[in-house]
Amino acid sequence: MALRHYILDFNLSAPADYPSTVRGLQSIFQEQEMTETVHDTEGHGYLATFIGKNGRFLLLRLHSHGLVTLDLQCCEGDNTAQVDNLLNALEKKMKSLLHGNIRRVKRLPALTRGAAVDRYWPTADGRLVEYDIDRVLYDEDSAYQNIKILHSQQFGNILILNGDVNLADSDLPYTQAIMGGGKENYTGKEVLILGGGDGGNFAEAVKLKPKMITMVEISFGSLRPVDVLLQGFVMSSPWFWFWTHMRKTCGSVLDNLTGDCYQVLVEDCVPVLKKYVEEGKTFDYVINDLTAVPISTAPEEDSTWEFLRLILDLSIKVLRPTGKYFTQGNCANLTEALTLYEEQLGRLSCPVDFSKEVVCVPSYMELWVFYTIWKK
Amino acid sequence: MALRHYILDFNLSAPADYPSTVRGLQSIFQEQEMTETVHDTEGHGYLATFIGKNGRFLLLRLHSHGLVTLDLQCCEGDNTAQVDNLLNALEKKMKSLLHGNIRRVKRLPALTRGAAVDRYWPTADGRLVEYDIDRVLYDEDSAYQNIKILHSQQFGNILILNGDVNLADSDLPYTQAIMGGGKENYTGKEVLILGGGDGGNFAEAVKLKPKMITMVEISFGSLRPVDVLLQGFVMSSPWFWFWTHMRKTCGSVLDNLTGDCYQVLVEDCVPVLKKYVEEGKTFDYVINDLTAVPISTAPEEDSTWEFLRLILDLSIKVLRPTGKYFTQGNCANLTEALTLYEEQLGRLSCPVDFSKEVVCVPSYMELWVFYTIWKK
Repeated sequence: MALRHYILDFNLSAPADYPSTVRGLQSIFQEQEMTETVHDTEGHGYLATFIGKNGRFLLLRLHSHGLVTLDLQCCEGDNTAQVDNLLNALEKKMKSLLHGNIRRVKRLPALTRGAAVDRYWPTADGRLVEYDIDRVLYDEDSAYQNIKILHSQQFGNILILNGDVNLADSDLPYTQAIMGGGKENYTGKEVLILGGGDGGNFAEAVKLKPKMITMVEISFGSLRPVDVLLQGFVMSSPWFWFWTHMRKTCGSVLDNLTGDCYQVLVEDCVPVLKKYVEEGKTFDYVINDLTAVPISTAPEEDSTWEFLRLILDLSIKVLRPTGKYFTQGNCANLTEALTLYEEQLGRLSCPVDFSKEVVCVPSYMELWVFYTIWKK
Repeated sequence: MALRHYILDFNLSAPADYPSTVRGLQSIFQEQEMTETVHDTEGHGYLATFIGKNGRFLLLRLHSHGLVTLDLQCCEGDNTAQVDNLLNALEKKMKSLLHGNIRRVKRLPALTRGAAVDRYWPTADGRLVEYDIDRVLYDEDSAYQNIKILHSQQFGNILILNGDVNLADSDLPYTQAIMGGGKENYTGKEVLILGGGDGGNFAEAVKLKPKMITMVEISFGSLRPVDVLLQGFVMSSPWFWFWTHMRKTCGSVLDNLTGDCYQVLVEDCVPVLKKYVEEGKTFDYVINDLTAVPISTAPEEDSTWEFLRLILDLSIKVLRPTGKYFTQGNCANLTEALTLYEEQLGRLSCPVDFSKEVVCVPSYMELWVFYTIWKK
């Protein structure tokens, strides 16, 4: 059973008079039969807590700098009309007690805490956002990460890896952006996709009649490799269920690991890339859909940057002179991370140029940066 | 000075043992020199509050159904590294006390309450979302509504009317959608725009070389009509500052109320539409950018629906037989509101058909529905 947490705040022009404000609210608390405790804050304003019926808890703070905050916590099964009435009564009373002194009233949509279906998936730049998630379709730990597929009323099924929103049914703009923003002609081309286990850009690329697409995705095999090795996702495979839920994104193209113009290699991409470099094999397009750019250069991130640079270097080596390398960066607000990434581009064994595009990916709730990189 | 509110929740497989859990956390609270109060919840789990230094307040609840919630409130000036350490210590301790029993740990990005710059602007479907707002550029009450222009790092300047996000610099997709989704040829056409005071679709339409655009926007004159009547927005007009901040959206086209192919009427659109109907004046395109569809049929909304139907009826009357009427609906999740709107379309004096499109408007953080309506 979840907890509903209501927040109601008042910004004042001048600090409120504690005794008269508290006295004014008292009748409401009494009516609710709430038990009051006034706490000693050692000079940090007025603070009282109230325990009511059915596990209701209320916190009233009158801050010394002219802010009044109210928190009301109720159990999920509590009568929401009653709770709304209580909040309305408190808001109305505060307005009449402090009329003229209130600069802003802010009542936030109630937070739902501890619910079976978690609706809060913060953005990459650390903002709190609530999604319209109503169902959990898939929730498994692979050898590499936690994989969730949640259903959003408006975005459709959303893939969430280790708590990060990755791709939803609504997110064709992501797929288009990481394939060159619709400006490329894939017909007859050779394409290498690194990662992209959701199948989004794989399915999209197949439609464009390339000569050959090779997708190298390690995590396909991470849950039960034996199912993957069967070359066809039988129902016993967790990936079968995964793709059942991501079908709007990947279509039926991943039901088999090989087709007329494609092959899926269930392998780590680094040895595959090294082998291609040795063999002199090259591609028209390399699409790196492995992961977003690391967000810092903290020591623990060092290896991530090194890994990223290794893959970049190998990818550029297998790129034809006229070829293009596409990848996601990170959210537009993480300018430091993007700058660090661009610095890496100057440190490759083969000199490159790049362009970037800012794209609105519907389910991300933040703008996202995509890169196109080519040999100088 | 704002309040930072941290939330840290634990979903358990089975209810926690109160005494041992509380005893286990005690050393942390003692180290922080927090004063504890244990409250009688009348059988609704364990609830303790703690008052610490510098106005810190902590609430610990062990709910009887296997949920543990922690709230920590600190003043804005508090040492965030120390606060993070405290939360880390609590999380670590809980994990060691309840290892194996924890199904989920959820730590939300801290809420900032009562800050000068408000970052929380809920979606039309009532979800809590935090924006990357860093500055308030404009905040005035007109005769009709509160008008704010806030600066978002990623979306640019955002116009907020009565607390609803209306249009940001990033939102060309809104303008394109309400002009027919880029599928229309405006060259040589006669266009009527109702509302749209931000100038977005007005500026966009002017670029498309129509014969004549007439925009009817009442609120231009709402703050200081005298400035508007000067036919040119002198610096003394609040609208001058408004358009300074919305310049990326509206360009310079609204610096004057008339131009080669346009005129702006600072009037209520209803009498203007009635006059056009009487005169037999017609248009190729009517763009209704007045307001979103009302979200209910509650009695207080009756007049809103009536107003909406009146404008719709008059607009269809001034539409040429091959003409099109474009308007926004509401967010995709408010299906009831959209259905009600579509019912209105069956009740017009002239029979119409319609199509709708779901569009991602970057700053909205929710998908939005747009309608195209034409005479049968």
